[in-house]
Amino acid sequence: MSSGYRWPYGPVAIIAPFNFPLEIPLLQLMGALFMGNKVLLKCCSRVSVVMEQALRMLHACGLPTGDVDLINCDGPVMHQILLKGHPRMTQFTGSSKIAEMLARDLHGKIKIEDAGWDWKILGPDVHDIDYVAYVADQDAYAYSGQKCSAQSALFVHKNWVKAGFLEKISALARQRSLEKTTISPVLTVTNATFQKHVKEMLTIPGAKVLFGGGLLKEKHSIPACYGSFEPTAIQVPMAEFLKPHYFEICKKEIFGPFQVVVEYNDGDLDAMLATLEKTDAYLTAAVVSRDIQFQNKVLAHTINGTTYSGIRARTTGAPQNHWFGPAGDPRGAGIGSPEAIKLVWSCHREIIYDQGPVQSDWKTPESS
Amino acid sequence: MSSGYRWPYGPVAIIAPFNFPLEIPLLQLMGALFMGNKVLLKCCSRVSVVMEQALRMLHACGLPTGDVDLINCDGPVMHQILLKGHPRMTQFTGSSKIAEMLARDLHGKIKIEDAGWDWKILGPDVHDIDYVAYVADQDAYAYSGQKCSAQSALFVHKNWVKAGFLEKISALARQRSLEKTTISPVLTVTNATFQKHVKEMLTIPGAKVLFGGGLLKEKHSIPACYGSFEPTAIQVPMAEFLKPHYFEICKKEIFGPFQVVVEYNDGDLDAMLATLEKTDAYLTAAVVSRDIQFQNKVLAHTINGTTYSGIRARTTGAPQNHWFGPAGDPRGAGIGSPEAIKLVWSCHREIIYDQGPVQSDWKTPESS
Amino acid sequence: MSSGYRWPYGPVAIIAPFNFPLEIPLLQLMGALFMGNKVLLKCCSRVSVVMEQALRMLHACGLPTGDVDLINCDGPVMHQILLKGHPRMTQFTGSSKIAEMLARDLHGKIKIEDAGWDWKILGPDVHDIDYVAYVADQDAYAYSGQKCSAQSALFVHKNWVKAGFLEKISALARQRSLEKTTISPVLTVTNATFQKHVKEMLTIPGAKVLFGGGLLKEKHSIPACYGSFEPTAIQVPMAEFLKPHYFEICKKEIFGPFQVVVEYNDGDLDAMLATLEKTDAYLTAAVVSRDIQFQNKVLAHTINGTTYSGIRARTTGAPQNHWFGPAGDPRGAGIGSPEAIKLVWSCHREIIYDQGPVQSDWKTPESS
Amino acid sequence: MSSGYRWPYGPVAIIAPFNFPLEIPLLQLMGALFMGNKVLLKCCSRVSVVMEQALRMLHACGLPTGDVDLINCDGPVMHQILLKGHPRMTQFTGSSKIAEMLARDLHGKIKIEDAGWDWKILGPDVHDIDYVAYVADQDAYAYSGQKCSAQSALFVHKNWVKAGFLEKISALARQRSLEKTTISPVLTVTNATFQKHVKEMLTIPGAKVLFGGGLLKEKHSIPACYGSFEPTAIQVPMAEFLKPHYFEICKKEIFGPFQVVVEYNDGDLDAMLATLEKTDAYLTAAVVSRDIQFQNKVLAHTINGTTYSGIRARTTGAPQNHWFGPAGDPRGAGIGSPEAIKLVWSCHREIIYDQGPVQSDWKTPESS
Repeated sequence: MSSGYRWPYGPVAIIAPFNFPLEIPLLQLMGALFMGNKVLLKCCSRVSVVMEQALRMLHACGLPTGDVDLINCDGPVMHQILLKGHPRMTQFTGSSKIAEMLARDLHGKIKIEDAGWDWKILGPDVHDIDYVAYVADQDAYAYSGQKCSAQSALFVHKNWVKAGFLEKISALARQRSLEKTTISPVLTVTNATFQKHVKEMLTIPGAKVLFGGGLLKEKHSIPACYGSFEPTAIQVPMAEFLKPHYFEICKKEIFGPFQVVVEYNDGDLDAMLATLEKTDAYLTAAVVSRDIQFQNKVLAHTINGTTYSGIRARTTGAPQNHWFGPAGDPRGAGIGSPEAIKLVWSCHREIIYDQGPVQSDWKTPESS
Repeated sequence: MSSGYRWPYGPVAIIAPFNFPLEIPLLQLMGALFMGNKVLLKCCSRVSVVMEQALRMLHACGLPTGDVDLINCDGPVMHQILLKGHPRMTQFTGSSKIAEMLARDLHGKIKIEDAGWDWKILGPDVHDIDYVAYVADQDAYAYSGQKCSAQSALFVHKNWVKAGFLEKISALARQRSLEKTTISPVLTVTNATFQKHVKEMLTIPGAKVLFGGGLLKEKHSIPACYGSFEPTAIQVPMAEFLKPHYFEICKKEIFGPFQVVVEYNDGDLDAMLATLEKTDAYLTAAVVSRDIQFQNKVLAHTINGTTYSGIRARTTGAPQNHWFGPAGDPRGAGIGSPEAIKLVWSCHREIIYDQGPVQSDWKTPESS
Repeated sequence: MSSGYRWPYGPVAIIAPFNFPLEIPLLQLMGALFMGNKVLLKCCSRVSVVMEQALRMLHACGLPTGDVDLINCDGPVMHQILLKGHPRMTQFTGSSKIAEMLARDLHGKIKIEDAGWDWKILGPDVHDIDYVAYVADQDAYAYSGQKCSAQSALFVHKNWVKAGFLEKISALARQRSLEKTTISPVLTVTNATFQKHVKEMLTIPGAKVLFGGGLLKEKHSIPACYGSFEPTAIQVPMAEFLKPHYFEICKKEIFGPFQVVVEYNDGDLDAMLATLEKTDAYLTAAVVSRDIQFQNKVLAHTINGTTYSGIRARTTGAPQNHWFGPAGDPRGAGIGSPEAIKLVWSCHREIIYDQGPVQSDWKTPESS
Repeated sequence: MSSGYRWPYGPVAIIAPFNFPLEIPLLQLMGALFMGNKVLLKCCSRVSVVMEQALRMLHACGLPTGDVDLINCDGPVMHQILLKGHPRMTQFTGSSKIAEMLARDLHGKIKIEDAGWDWKILGPDVHDIDYVAYVADQDAYAYSGQKCSAQSALFVHKNWVKAGFLEKISALARQRSLEKTTISPVLTVTNATFQKHVKEMLTIPGAKVLFGGGLLKEKHSIPACYGSFEPTAIQVPMAEFLKPHYFEICKKEIFGPFQVVVEYNDGDLDAMLATLEKTDAYLTAAVVSRDIQFQNKVLAHTINGTTYSGIRARTTGAPQNHWFGPAGDPRGAGIGSPEAIKLVWSCHREIIYDQGPVQSDWKTPESS
């Protein structure tokens, strides 16, 4: 009887980013503890006070104080700790650049979760247009686009365009304001970076600003080190989007309230899916349709780790409900789901029970 | 409805060693193909003729010729191909040294299977002594110890010693001969390496040759580049084995017909298990007992990837039947079992079906 | 550690019908043997020569001759054997009348598979009309409707009617002939029964013969004890179909090439599904649509044991591929799938491993 | 894609006994509701006040008042309700006699849980003797043996007898008293029935009272309609126990503080297991040993639905932790575990998604 078990690694490390100061480190930490590991946790120093308080609460609830070590330090110090401490596994959430450096220096004993350029496709069948417009607005601009799964590109079948979909998302975006707190500062994209990107996008032939495109006009006190710009959509013609050079520009991730919008027709689908497969990060995606054949076609030709399918599909459903890892990378780290917790925080161990009995007439074989 | 799928990586590479020229590359190749990948296969050049013929047979059976690329080249050339070709995953079986270099250079997009220092413990309850002695002899010396799961260390409870177990394995080992083809050349350990290691082992206080220890006395034509030495066991006192310095010597892997034998008593068990946890590679292990509490105690305090438990336990049952991967390493690669094939040759993808319907009374929320 | 196992019953019986003299008894027999039971097999005497030969082949292939007993007898004799032999489980495939009698006399130690009144709904979205018409013709009339899952009622959305669907199935049915062997004798429905039922159906206001309705006009030598009538469809208005009295007539099972056709509109769906839930047997059903919301609506409001969903859905896909049991009945027996084999041919056994250890400081509690 | 689902039955009934007025009806009720059924609940009238209050609490917690109907009536009234109301499934816990009557009258649409004659075997290896004696005393006499899984027979290997096991369980039983509430009235076994059974047991050659055997000597006010007798064990020689006539006497279930004790030796095991397989009810059993081969031998030759294995094994662990159903009977009903809830309170439904697409070059086949 051969039985597969999941076994803890033992000593492990977690490195967590700024944008979800509680959710990301807490979910990864609880997964690591649940599977029986001993954790060294480093949060982004700007926000680590949050997890410090969470740990105090966990201690008050009975967590043994020896189970987790919380460290406050900058990146280079943590880097040295990882190199000298030899954790059996390190889970890193953050930028691709740091992720690759760590993956190399730790010889791959790592699970990573990095940025995403996340897309949504509206299929040929138009239903529930107000609902779909509302979800699209939320996916792109809630928290000013600072979820890692925020909608970066939106592909709209011409049937939706005819039905007035673009007007609806424009209207929703224009209602956003600092006063209603439906807009916020952008922590990692400055106004200069944003403006430069808008300018570059508009070099694409036929590209135009669908809405937004400028800095916030409301009076505000957002410091210059943070971004303060409008929810923005730039529409690009399909023919140009498919060209490798322009696609390079379009797929650049702006970790803020910015998206590319592309209208398509039935005949464009194959080329569009082939181009979408040329991104580097396969985080989330969404297929909005009730036609199961359309859904299956898109799912079969893409590999995004977390893909939502159905008329209610959104890109930003995770990690509340489920796994949230990029696919296609053996170092990919999920979060939250039982499957993710098992894959990220434990290793496979096979135990083969060979209990017998030995046959009653067994004899030592003669050497041949 | 959130469903987890296993998805192929796409372009992948396999690098396979000399010692199982058919079994290792074929099992990994079939796993990779079964999960839908496109494979670049590099076998050890000395034996790649075997897989070349296997591929021709697969083609004759219907394998599309475009599914696998077989390459004949040396290591440095393959290294460059991997660096420039960007396979999404590389599976490597071979030495730890090369494995670590590749893990670093490929930024961890790798699954590895390297050497093992594999141990077996005989529990306090003595049963089926002839059977257990026969299996111990096979585990240590079949194919002259050139299975990666060959028994490297044997821990014998004093009840077995009293029952004559050491005499039985000595007798079995001494029956082995080139003439009966129960001994063979050793491809990666020279006589000089072997003799140096025996000499070093004997510096441990109380260590003695249980049997073997010298070069083969039979007339033979084994060339000097290969090893030609006797099936050998060196017995070490438990007290010395536990000392870190001597343990370092004992745990050196000799990829040939060589094992360390240690007698133990009930009181030694905890210290012995603690020491066994200080090896670097956790490939296979075996617990020979019918007492389920004893089995569970050893299993609970060790992490070897493939652990056999029961009176019939052997270290070399894999990969015929099941997973064969080291535990405790996120880069560990299994072989052969459904679980291993899934974990090594596919990535997780989560598809969330959010098909609706939208509630019939749904309205766009007013901005707050 | 509490583990659920499936355990064989031991002595069991199988009673199989005429219409699939090989498939039904062989699939049930192999399931019973696979799970470790000892089988007494009774086939319909008219066709038991088929299984007798199959058993001889199994014996030639190595089946131990003691594993299966084949008995040739009539029903009353078998009845007495069951009452006196006390098989732990009896699997019966056949008419509802006999099934209920056996269920009572065996005190429910039985799994049954009886007749079905199997329906198909074509959803509002029209696609692949030629394919769907072809499948509908096959589902209703292949083997002259003598599959237990043959399509008995077809609900056609008006969009399909407008697209010419009824003309297409009429044309296909009219092409069938004895000469092409696309029509055959009907073994359990006589011409008189058929003619009486057609007559009764036509008493429903607005009912009309869509095609067929009479006896075969081709010259033939089918004896009078068998039916020899045309592939027939009778169309009934939805408003009448929903009336309990007429529904009673419509849902009468004719185990031959006969179906009821009903046209419906969007507003009829809820009433139609409510009526379909009032049948007695919930064997197979099919929902033909690409709209996943429509599929889900029908699936959520019905319980047919084997339900096909999708544009390619047919009612007669089983038992080649999967389970084939009525739902909603604790005595329901599936066939063919791993799930069916486990549920029909084994019982649950829970083994709780409570291996210890007892805590080292445990003491017998003082009586309070 | 063929997917198996578990589907609710719809209208169902539960009939629950006196001895666990909360646990049994509540666990079955919650399982039934969890799987989506509508329940008619009948508890034993003597204790139904308990579930009435439990239902009021559930209503206060939010259970919709239409989900469960509680009925207070006697057996014949309930019988008529079942016959006329046609619940799709009835779950019955109680005596075998009523269970069989219901199974017949409901044509097997029933899941039953009836009495048990539950045994425990102490294997040849003696460990933790005080713990094992304590568990044996609890299994036989806690709640005065009125658990359906109470230990009815105890098979003691002579190694345990030599170690003083029988003296230990005798001492524990003799400590029980009404004053300490470690003895209680017996609700379904009168003193006369008990005394008659003791007398009959003592007709077996060599049988003797190990302890108990008489009425309670403490002063008490237990009414005559209930039993008031001592915790009793009668020891029977193995040779007589194996004789069919005496086994018939031994296996009679006394639903109170009574057990049969049999000493055995290695050579008796096969005959003993063969005899144990001749009981009618296969509720619980226990194998007390650390030798996994001994455990496996007993498990392989028995079918009791809930079997505990290991040095800590007890017969009365359920239903707190797991399934609690007899094996070997297709009408067997478990309780409490996910597996039990699924098997008892839902039916299998297979949905086959055949979504397409139809091949682009598909054409209606020409009639052959």
